[in-house]
Amino acid sequence: MPKRTAGPEIERLIQLLAKLPGLGPRSARRAALHLIKNRDKLLAPLATAMAEAHEKVKVCSHCGNVDTADPCTLCSDPRRDRSLICVVEEVGDLWALERAGAWSGLYHVLGGTLSAVEGIRPEDLSISPLVERAAREGIMEVVLAVNATVEGQTTAHYITERLKELNIPASRLAHGVPVGGELDYLDEGTLTQAMRARRPF
Amino acid sequence: MPKRTAGPEIERLIQLLAKLPGLGPRSARRAALHLIKNRDKLLAPLATAMAEAHEKVKVCSHCGNVDTADPCTLCSDPRRDRSLICVVEEVGDLWALERAGAWSGLYHVLGGTLSAVEGIRPEDLSISPLVERAAREGIMEVVLAVNATVEGQTTAHYITERLKELNIPASRLAHGVPVGGELDYLDEGTLTQAMRARRPF
Repeated sequence: MPKRTAGPEIERLIQLLAKLPGLGPRSARRAALHLIKNRDKLLAPLATAMAEAHEKVKVCSHCGNVDTADPCTLCSDPRRDRSLICVVEEVGDLWALERAGAWSGLYHVLGGTLSAVEGIRPEDLSISPLVERAAREGIMEVVLAVNATVEGQTTAHYITERLKELNIPASRLAHGVPVGGELDYLDEGTLTQAMRARRPF
Repeated sequence: MPKRTAGPEIERLIQLLAKLPGLGPRSARRAALHLIKNRDKLLAPLATAMAEAHEKVKVCSHCGNVDTADPCTLCSDPRRDRSLICVVEEVGDLWALERAGAWSGLYHVLGGTLSAVEGIRPEDLSISPLVERAAREGIMEVVLAVNATVEGQTTAHYITERLKELNIPASRLAHGVPVGGELDYLDEGTLTQAMRARRPF
């Protein structure tokens, strides 16, 4: 859009919206127009919600989750099993496991994975805090719920070695056929793992 | 996401983001996380930009464009041909024509199209203001740059009839093969129109 079409306020809004994942320059423009069209019902509330989130949301100093409380709602929930930690790469993974209701222990967010290519070393991730936490709090098991990628598995391997020194057992998520998945569309690695780990009916 | 995972501020942010075109519930969650991760570089500036846009952006009382000035930058630009009006359905169409540098006259935003199905009548759109404006300002030509849909064409037809009463000539955009378009992928209507309107080399 040439500079003359709309004021600098609209230009700036479009530029910032385009930085959101899932929005490109074209869809950011469409989103900006939609916001301006619904200025009282959507634009104003969203501005307020963002300002509030900016003011109140913090990173949990225990597990790395984001919340308005520190320690976060999950870390301070007395119903959770405090002897188990599930390690995830990102907060989004934690949310996914919570949505599934798949875990009732505590969490630990690494903040990424080790990567030689991108120069991400153990000290760039929340690995030492995890190991210290596991030792200090007498954790019985650490589940490494990292992505099934090369980087994820390298990271899991590294953490397992560190935990071994402290005699804390580590485990990983099972590989297999996704629920609802069709064999025809699955990669060979998954099929091989699912066959190897087959269970009696 | 169950209520317990994150605070109500984050929930609200996700809900509002999901109302943007192009973002669903899942991508809204991803966008919210991205915002929280970049709270100082993105979340805070976006909150400010939205508050500013809400405060300053208005609809131009002449043409229906959105801008921080009324009359808008385009309406008050002395280099524009004030005897020509290009009629568009939405502000986004105006922006698209401006990006293309395809028009140097004035604009008029209808705010939609006539639709029997959705019950949108002439008085629901900015049609009478257009006709009055064309008569008052001695407009020489009105280009109906509406979408090539049934609703768009019905609307164009209705406006043409209204302008005829005032002897103001109306025109429409040319139909034809899009630049870079492959014949094989074009619909028959477009091909027929392109053939009928063929021009000497």
